[in-house]
Amino acid sequence: MKVRRELEEMGRAARRAARLLARASGMRRDDALARMADALTARRDEVLSANEQDHEAARANGANESFLDRLLLDEGRLAGAAAGVRGVLSQPDPLADVFDERVLPNGLQVFKRRVPLGVIGVIYESRPNITIDIAALCVKSGNAAFLRGGSEAVRTNSALAGLASECAAAAGLPRESVQIVRSTDRALVGEMLGMKDYLDLMVPRGGAELVRRVAAEAAMPAITGGVGVCHAYVDRKVDVDLAVAVAYNAKVSRPSVCNALDTVLVHSAIAPAYLPKLAAEWSKDGVEIRADRRALTILGQSAGEGVRPAAPEDWGREYLSLTASVRVVDTVDEALEHIEAYGSGHTDTVLTEDDAVADRFVREVDSGVVLVNASTRFNDGGELGLGAEVAISTNKMHARGPMGLRELTSYKWVALGSGQVRN
Amino acid sequence: MKVRRELEEMGRAARRAARLLARASGMRRDDALARMADALTARRDEVLSANEQDHEAARANGANESFLDRLLLDEGRLAGAAAGVRGVLSQPDPLADVFDERVLPNGLQVFKRRVPLGVIGVIYESRPNITIDIAALCVKSGNAAFLRGGSEAVRTNSALAGLASECAAAAGLPRESVQIVRSTDRALVGEMLGMKDYLDLMVPRGGAELVRRVAAEAAMPAITGGVGVCHAYVDRKVDVDLAVAVAYNAKVSRPSVCNALDTVLVHSAIAPAYLPKLAAEWSKDGVEIRADRRALTILGQSAGEGVRPAAPEDWGREYLSLTASVRVVDTVDEALEHIEAYGSGHTDTVLTEDDAVADRFVREVDSGVVLVNASTRFNDGGELGLGAEVAISTNKMHARGPMGLRELTSYKWVALGSGQVRN
Repeated sequence: MKVRRELEEMGRAARRAARLLARASGMRRDDALARMADALTARRDEVLSANEQDHEAARANGANESFLDRLLLDEGRLAGAAAGVRGVLSQPDPLADVFDERVLPNGLQVFKRRVPLGVIGVIYESRPNITIDIAALCVKSGNAAFLRGGSEAVRTNSALAGLASECAAAAGLPRESVQIVRSTDRALVGEMLGMKDYLDLMVPRGGAELVRRVAAEAAMPAITGGVGVCHAYVDRKVDVDLAVAVAYNAKVSRPSVCNALDTVLVHSAIAPAYLPKLAAEWSKDGVEIRADRRALTILGQSAGEGVRPAAPEDWGREYLSLTASVRVVDTVDEALEHIEAYGSGHTDTVLTEDDAVADRFVREVDSGVVLVNASTRFNDGGELGLGAEVAISTNKMHARGPMGLRELTSYKWVALGSGQVRN
Repeated sequence: MKVRRELEEMGRAARRAARLLARASGMRRDDALARMADALTARRDEVLSANEQDHEAARANGANESFLDRLLLDEGRLAGAAAGVRGVLSQPDPLADVFDERVLPNGLQVFKRRVPLGVIGVIYESRPNITIDIAALCVKSGNAAFLRGGSEAVRTNSALAGLASECAAAAGLPRESVQIVRSTDRALVGEMLGMKDYLDLMVPRGGAELVRRVAAEAAMPAITGGVGVCHAYVDRKVDVDLAVAVAYNAKVSRPSVCNALDTVLVHSAIAPAYLPKLAAEWSKDGVEIRADRRALTILGQSAGEGVRPAAPEDWGREYLSLTASVRVVDTVDEALEHIEAYGSGHTDTVLTEDDAVADRFVREVDSGVVLVNASTRFNDGGELGLGAEVAISTNKMHARGPMGLRELTSYKWVALGSGQVRN
């Protein structure tokens, strides 16, 4: 009961903050972001020391390496977060956006004006840079942020959210523009998912279990996303070295995140030339391969102990680690069917020199981001030019793929008349 | 159980149809619409005779006038529906839309391509022209329509949906591009709301009870909308005759629909000049006024029996009939607070010659459509240039206000590369 009362108080404060944020000038909102970016450098030690405590506690609790990697902040990642805030800051003010203007035959002047959604609830796990990304995106777009991070990162997240909140206040915006739930009581998540009077949108960022729970329980609209079962289809007509380099990057550059590659589908005509080279590259980083029967036959002669037969559950699995599955297919159709059956609508890439194959892949793969001859790792708000992202949506409603500033807004229709009435 | 099995079969057919529709050319989809518009004229008698049967049955069941009006189709409304289909037909193909193109510094060529949502479920009451509006909007935008109309209009709706489905087939599209549930079993609605594997979006079109039920029970994303508690604020600085004409039109031109005016808020400085004139106009059509104390004092001297004191429940009430509430306010703030407290986020208009007041109203009223010196009746897809509408959303997510073709689509990100990898 006490928890609920506290959350409701936070919710009311968030509503008030959202109303003021929606009316605040773009200059004031930008000022808050500039202060956040500066504070991430100026108050670096304070944040890193909070993160060190979280990291040590997690390690003592036996957290695995992928988890510890996601939790970790260092000077580099903090500088990256500050650069992310500056990237968001440099974007045009989404609330200055007026679009779809027209004058109707009766003289009514109609247009749409972009408006904030209101209060954005975000429930996330480990990665603490999310705190600052979301604070920046919300404040810039005139939304209040209502955050609940993972309990293992509570010190880091509180430090970052406190910093963002103080920067908002210093810019003349409500302190409650950014709020974080500091209690680590697990019942909180359920309470938050019921707060439809206070939260206009719920964004889960975390593993499949969290995403499923939010989709099932959230009383407000919720984004589904963050679960990326990512495929690369290597066509028969392909630059083998390019396809090795892309699949290597997609798997190895940061295996713990949702846009990392999970499954390679390779055309049988190129598989004997391609797979051994890929396996050799991957083996340098210790990637474990789960291979179908035909891939196993090909790799059996060249690869070492890092290759195992794939089990049925390897298809459609998000590894989040240095593991990947490989399957040999005989046609583009087989690859498309595999992706339709096992993909999560997140990110898929085709590696081919055949324009017709690329075009079909782009048209028929029903995913948020579809790439040609490029790494799946580019499904990312920063990489795609949004500054940063609040989530990567696999929904088709509202927003799909990386959600930046514009995706945190709605619009209102405005019609300016001179006494028009309807017949 | 039989019902569920039938619905699932329809759902699977809709999925297949949606996949084919998404890949069909714009020419083929347009051909289906052209055939629908023609068939509404050519097969007019068949539709009108089905409607006559529905109308007689409803009248025999004691349906009220507002209900009977919504149910009615006549040659004029049928011609209107055909014109609506032609209006949708004449819109550009939303699926040809490629937008937000850019080339990233690493050479990746990024853009978004518009794609259909998939299968659109629509549960609606009475107004049978919705059947044809939605069939046209769905087919044009490459979505399959899965319809469930009110049981009182089942003959009319089945005739219209059958006609649309045959036109789709004649154009070489799947017959199941448009399907309607013909059973009037009330348990169907609950079953449909659970069909998240088959329906990508649920659109309720009907009264407040239906909208609430769908919001509470739908397992898939759902549009909230159609409940319009519409306000007009008559400012102190106003052209009285214009403001009378607009409020007259907004209330009287079609009282049974959601964009009809419900509440007039009038500044105390102009109320004595304005209200008697408004009441005199309204009384010609028999509008009943629910007046607050101050409005009552003003109207007591001039108006007849059509004026009664407002009860607390008159604020925030959608009348859907020839009744309106009137309140005298002393400031713009009071009007804005009233609308914030009692509005439904649907449609509100300000009648003023003061640009500052108009600007504040437009900024601060948080509704889907906000008008200045124009009738609330313009919140309508056809009137605002969308051709027709699938619903009028009061959600902020995805789409707000009238939802036309574009609002029935999502997009995918496409990135064309030449071997780009991420650092």
